[in-house]
Amino acid sequence: MNKQRLEAFTDGVYAIVITLLILDIRIPEVHPATLGSALVRMLPQAFTYVLSFFVVGLYWIANHRVALNVKQIDGTLIWLNLVWLLFVSVMPFPTSLLGRYPLQGVPIAIYGVDLILTNLTGLFISIYLMKHRELCVRAISPQTLRDQIPAYAIPNGVYGIAIGLGWILPWLSYVLYALVLAGLAVRFARINNPFQSSRRRG
Amino acid sequence: MNKQRLEAFTDGVYAIVITLLILDIRIPEVHPATLGSALVRMLPQAFTYVLSFFVVGLYWIANHRVALNVKQIDGTLIWLNLVWLLFVSVMPFPTSLLGRYPLQGVPIAIYGVDLILTNLTGLFISIYLMKHRELCVRAISPQTLRDQIPAYAIPNGVYGIAIGLGWILPWLSYVLYALVLAGLAVRFARINNPFQSSRRRG
Amino acid sequence: MNKQRLEAFTDGVYAIVITLLILDIRIPEVHPATLGSALVRMLPQAFTYVLSFFVVGLYWIANHRVALNVKQIDGTLIWLNLVWLLFVSVMPFPTSLLGRYPLQGVPIAIYGVDLILTNLTGLFISIYLMKHRELCVRAISPQTLRDQIPAYAIPNGVYGIAIGLGWILPWLSYVLYALVLAGLAVRFARINNPFQSSRRRG
Amino acid sequence: MNKQRLEAFTDGVYAIVITLLILDIRIPEVHPATLGSALVRMLPQAFTYVLSFFVVGLYWIANHRVALNVKQIDGTLIWLNLVWLLFVSVMPFPTSLLGRYPLQGVPIAIYGVDLILTNLTGLFISIYLMKHRELCVRAISPQTLRDQIPAYAIPNGVYGIAIGLGWILPWLSYVLYALVLAGLAVRFARINNPFQSSRRRG
Repeated sequence: MNKQRLEAFTDGVYAIVITLLILDIRIPEVHPATLGSALVRMLPQAFTYVLSFFVVGLYWIANHRVALNVKQIDGTLIWLNLVWLLFVSVMPFPTSLLGRYPLQGVPIAIYGVDLILTNLTGLFISIYLMKHRELCVRAISPQTLRDQIPAYAIPNGVYGIAIGLGWILPWLSYVLYALVLAGLAVRFARINNPFQSSRRRG
Repeated sequence: MNKQRLEAFTDGVYAIVITLLILDIRIPEVHPATLGSALVRMLPQAFTYVLSFFVVGLYWIANHRVALNVKQIDGTLIWLNLVWLLFVSVMPFPTSLLGRYPLQGVPIAIYGVDLILTNLTGLFISIYLMKHRELCVRAISPQTLRDQIPAYAIPNGVYGIAIGLGWILPWLSYVLYALVLAGLAVRFARINNPFQSSRRRG
Repeated sequence: MNKQRLEAFTDGVYAIVITLLILDIRIPEVHPATLGSALVRMLPQAFTYVLSFFVVGLYWIANHRVALNVKQIDGTLIWLNLVWLLFVSVMPFPTSLLGRYPLQGVPIAIYGVDLILTNLTGLFISIYLMKHRELCVRAISPQTLRDQIPAYAIPNGVYGIAIGLGWILPWLSYVLYALVLAGLAVRFARINNPFQSSRRRG
Repeated sequence: MNKQRLEAFTDGVYAIVITLLILDIRIPEVHPATLGSALVRMLPQAFTYVLSFFVVGLYWIANHRVALNVKQIDGTLIWLNLVWLLFVSVMPFPTSLLGRYPLQGVPIAIYGVDLILTNLTGLFISIYLMKHRELCVRAISPQTLRDQIPAYAIPNGVYGIAIGLGWILPWLSYVLYALVLAGLAVRFARINNPFQSSRRRG
């Protein structure tokens, strides 16, 4: 398989998932006079929608950052990428569940588990690339990977805490999910590796 | 991230949003003999569908016009683009709401607010590009941007008036939304900047 | 706008419409023992699904054939293309309507009207390209266009007859729609213009 | 039609089908206290979701492997590809049916029939390419095709057995579907034809 089609397929899946999220926000069926208050009651759902929108956007950026260093694709990498896409494609379900049952332990846990699994798949892909330097533009040294461990461990640790808090202080779980997202967003916005943008042109 | 994948992702999101709009037009469940009149009652919904279809199409064209002048992408620009896509992706919700509760103040306002936010995000992106000329094909001078202000201010002003009229003369709000759309459509159809079409070939 | 992004957007819309059609085929809610017969009752719906699938596929091929001769894009062409996409994007609605109310005059008429409008938009685009030879790879002579008139007039004529028959012999309308599709499919499958496949490579 | 747009359209359809599958997993409507057990009852549905996700992913990889050897496209090939996409696009329906009526003969059979039809279409395309060597990068000899027969016959044979078992030992049908998938996945992951990845670059 050539890399370009894998990227096109991957971009397609991300674009569809991020857009499908809105379909789960159903129009309320109420008397027009009470529409305003019905919409206000939908605010937790709107929050999880926006959260998931940026989570999917974030994973898409993360996917690209990994892909930039890939020059060749093998069968295993295609399957690892499919697993990654599986956990991303599932996202509308926990989002919808959390919107329907806000501030409940079970949906908060399912949401967090999906985030952790997506994160770990990204880590497995990085490990696989480290071991197969023939697939990489620049070989990934064990040191480079070790340096990235906190970028995987910290979000997952916070997700784990958020899952635990779901049964005790559910609103704090929301705050933690949003904080991880904000942290990663800032991190990604700052790193403007010239390697990235110049690659296709150079 | 390379520009090509950002464009592919962006085009994907626009293509999906514009196509998903039809899913909100549900088949009426009536006795076959009254199907004709049931469909006639759906005309306001059909109007908002067509309006939103061209609104999304318009924003897609606007996005391209901005992208044509971008030669390099940084982290902030990716996030600004994601925010832009968020407001576009949300569009099926106000469209559906307006179709379900036609000629009501609240849905007209939500529809208009989404239009204004999308519009303002486009303006912020232009300002950001003006300040980062290293990302641009041609540097955007403050004068160029000032010349574009009416193109942002007039639509938003009319949207604001349409929102206000939603509680008084809701059908006039519809007319105003459609007028802005028609105005921008004519404007975009006329400008055939040779720079645009020759870029990838030159 | 560059041509490549217009094509990517257009391909995206077609791909989404053709795939969304299946969403309108709802799982029957019956006792498991009667599932078989419930599925048999869905056969007219399955027929309209397959019909629409190939109709959308056909229009996508038609769109490509036109696009192959376009070397430059102007604002009007973008809007004409958007109108074309509008009529294609609408297709899930008449498909779903016809599946829900099979063998009825009104849905058959709406389905046919959408087919005619899509067809006519294709013709308008060809006329526009004839008048703007600067946009074309090869100028379209009035004679070339006149030669294509039957390819537009015959399907539309048959669609018109099918619409009329919808109130008298609805099953014959289905046959006519399927016949036009089969005729165009055979026609497109036969024409293997070398110009087509060699264009990007040459 | 140029090959690139056919691939873009095909990739789009696969990306949408694989992502739409999640839409059929509906949020349960229960009292929050019983949400956990309601979700546990959805496990068979989750199983068919994951199965179909990888089935679609597998067919996408199979499509690419065929496409890599295609250098030119004719009208027949476009239609054969459309038929292939039809059977793939249908997939959300049997998946949803199997999720709603698990361990039942009829849905297991419909699921298997769709898998067999998709598989056979792939075989027909290979036969067509064998007979039209002018369309191929490397001519497919009858011997090469004969060597591939088991790769088509074995899965279809197992699918047929799974269909038959659907009325007797339905859980075994699930196991057989999953086994074929796992077998093909391992096979595809192993074959890392250098021809594949070097094609666009060489």
